[in-house]
Amino acid sequence: MIPSSSPSDPTESHLREEATSSEVLVDGNFLKARRDTVRLPDGGTSTREYVIHPGAVVVVPLLDDGRVVLERQYRYPVGRVMTEFPAGKLDAGEDPFVCGRRELLEETGYSGREWAYAGLMHLAVAYSTEIIHVYFARGLSLGERQLDVGEFVDVFTATPEELIGWCRDGTVTDAKTLTCTLWLQNVLSGAWTLDWQALGTGDAVG
Amino acid sequence: MIPSSSPSDPTESHLREEATSSEVLVDGNFLKARRDTVRLPDGGTSTREYVIHPGAVVVVPLLDDGRVVLERQYRYPVGRVMTEFPAGKLDAGEDPFVCGRRELLEETGYSGREWAYAGLMHLAVAYSTEIIHVYFARGLSLGERQLDVGEFVDVFTATPEELIGWCRDGTVTDAKTLTCTLWLQNVLSGAWTLDWQALGTGDAVG
Repeated sequence: MIPSSSPSDPTESHLREEATSSEVLVDGNFLKARRDTVRLPDGGTSTREYVIHPGAVVVVPLLDDGRVVLERQYRYPVGRVMTEFPAGKLDAGEDPFVCGRRELLEETGYSGREWAYAGLMHLAVAYSTEIIHVYFARGLSLGERQLDVGEFVDVFTATPEELIGWCRDGTVTDAKTLTCTLWLQNVLSGAWTLDWQALGTGDAVG
Repeated sequence: MIPSSSPSDPTESHLREEATSSEVLVDGNFLKARRDTVRLPDGGTSTREYVIHPGAVVVVPLLDDGRVVLERQYRYPVGRVMTEFPAGKLDAGEDPFVCGRRELLEETGYSGREWAYAGLMHLAVAYSTEIIHVYFARGLSLGERQLDVGEFVDVFTATPEELIGWCRDGTVTDAKTLTCTLWLQNVLSGAWTLDWQALGTGDAVG
């Protein structure tokens, strides 16, 4: 039985908010944010301030020996070197799949022969528009990585068991990487299946 | 063997950035952000713009019949009603455990007799300081919920199997809820254990 408030209920107007006006809150070099005035479900008004994000991609790269490719990168807002799956923001108008192949190559040097789209996550629903698309890659071959100027990233590999242990013991705390690990664990157990696609010859990254 | 760039390597100065100055970028009603100038590992400089967040708590509430308590809430930045575990921001100076009990009661009406701290996640490491603490609650009893003015939340229950299926099929896309589901799945399988604590009589939420 599906309760009336379950995800499949199409009539949720008692929860929805409608914009009545919108203004730029900040237009930084990196950070863009807006402040909207909204009409609440009960007719009241409130304001919503949120970051405008172009969207991003994260890749779970599976090596032939069963290990996964991970990165260590200093994340200034949290003041820590974080363990993460390779990820990056979409360039303006960029297709997420193109972005995933580009970011994997640029940051790690790996190219994948087969790719699968797993799904998407909304990263910070209270204050950001950010959507992250999750891809898996396999049939990996190592070339030269091409880090952007001012980008400092260490690449290493681990077994899925090591990664899952790090999620449990607090070594891995990045939400997108934890979410990818939910996917990885269920794909490896066979509970969740992926629709793998071999790259055609026209799919090479620039 | 642990590679030199693994999470347990203490010497990562080749990745670290140091602040050289900091200024307020935006001081909204809700959204606070800063712009810092940083010295990069190679001696170059860059700027980092990021949201200042007080931290938050998310609770995985386990009912005696094995179901979990979930919420449906409209999230304006992503323009969707989202399925999430109960969560909320820390009040100024608030202890995360106090916040978890308060948010669960306010949003769902449930009080937990036993609680366990699972761990923390960093939600959006590229542009936010936000840390979310993950708690589990059980021995739940239902009272009256106390939503804030202007807060509209539907509460419902689901089996863990339903929740895991929704994570797989794209019904659940909230990153903190996906991360909690990684915890839930491993706790229920017995792979990860929790340190449950019974609430004392002095632990009642105001």
